[in-house]
Amino acid sequence: MTYREIDDLPPRYGPQGPPRRRARRKAAESREQILRAATREFVTHGFAGARVSRIVSNAGSNPRMLYHYFGSKSHLYVAVLEEALGGLRRKELQIDIEHLGPREGLLQLFDFMAYHFEHNQHLVRLLSAENLLKAKYMRKSSRIPEMSSPVLTVIEQLIARGAAARQLPQGLDGLRLYILMVALSQFHLSNGHTLSVIFGRDLSAPAWRKDQASDARRMLAAFLNT
Amino acid sequence: MTYREIDDLPPRYGPQGPPRRRARRKAAESREQILRAATREFVTHGFAGARVSRIVSNAGSNPRMLYHYFGSKSHLYVAVLEEALGGLRRKELQIDIEHLGPREGLLQLFDFMAYHFEHNQHLVRLLSAENLLKAKYMRKSSRIPEMSSPVLTVIEQLIARGAAARQLPQGLDGLRLYILMVALSQFHLSNGHTLSVIFGRDLSAPAWRKDQASDARRMLAAFLNT
Repeated sequence: MTYREIDDLPPRYGPQGPPRRRARRKAAESREQILRAATREFVTHGFAGARVSRIVSNAGSNPRMLYHYFGSKSHLYVAVLEEALGGLRRKELQIDIEHLGPREGLLQLFDFMAYHFEHNQHLVRLLSAENLLKAKYMRKSSRIPEMSSPVLTVIEQLIARGAAARQLPQGLDGLRLYILMVALSQFHLSNGHTLSVIFGRDLSAPAWRKDQASDARRMLAAFLNT
Repeated sequence: MTYREIDDLPPRYGPQGPPRRRARRKAAESREQILRAATREFVTHGFAGARVSRIVSNAGSNPRMLYHYFGSKSHLYVAVLEEALGGLRRKELQIDIEHLGPREGLLQLFDFMAYHFEHNQHLVRLLSAENLLKAKYMRKSSRIPEMSSPVLTVIEQLIARGAAARQLPQGLDGLRLYILMVALSQFHLSNGHTLSVIFGRDLSAPAWRKDQASDARRMLAAFLNT
């Protein structure tokens, strides 16, 4: 029986599906709501300042559910970090390496990263705060290194193809290049408030952001052209 | 009477100088010790976690002196930010604009910045933490914008000279260029712990740092060459 045929069957359990499937979906929704509320809480208050009571109240849930799904405040925080970084990784891996040359592939990756950081500043804040904690909680996650290696593999493939075709400089290193790309696309966001005060300019103004992104991309392109 | 002659006079008050000068020096030392202890405290615990009692104890001072010199915990914190940023500004302004071409001047400025951040990571941590607070305290300082405009002036002079002599690209913007230079020289430090966990590499290793600094400098040079 194909999915099409299943869809065509008269509904046996009403539009919500059979009871077990409905329970599973409700559980997933509840977990998702806790995770979303926790993300806002950790972004706003940091790990130490975050309150489990506020998270469950904002999620329309209760502490028992939170501990059932996540085990502890620190496990919940690690899940928030994993989810936030997972979003970046999914976006990055959408680059079209099949059809783009190595240089264009790297520039498209840069565009994806810049767009993602600009539109997901909660990720930028979470990473800054976790770095101040010396990545104490992040190092408890095995998923984070696992989910991060594919983007390095993609960059290394592009570098190897580019070097072989003499379209990129020789001897580029994947991790170092990626970190420079993050620096160029993220630093003005992760330090936007302080830089705005230091230099008496509003770095959150859309026009400023647009010009900065354009300069950053030109800088990367110039480096890849050497 | 010149300073030389004063030095030649027989000491009237012993090697410590006259009583008022001695008192002034002791006051300056005491203020300095509180500032140093406060810097360590704010770097380690952040603004909210910092304790005045620990600061005076580590400074060999007392709360009365701290409030006498600085007024409040938040004023002390602003003084710490001012002192930390002042060190960077003094270093930056040592570039030899008289004898260097515009391109070399900007690259020397970059070298100074990279060296300074690498050897003053307390500044990097202070700025990250203050940014998470949305620069709430930093904006109370009038000194910070004042001390920061000279480095922009220097960069703008180099850009203008370089553009006139066709040794730099046309249309560079001083602030945007400076922020890209900070990004290239600081991001791997301000996010070193998290990046090390995410990619399973030790970004604090001297060899890694050296290669990264070299790539970052090449990237800046490539951009200035376009």
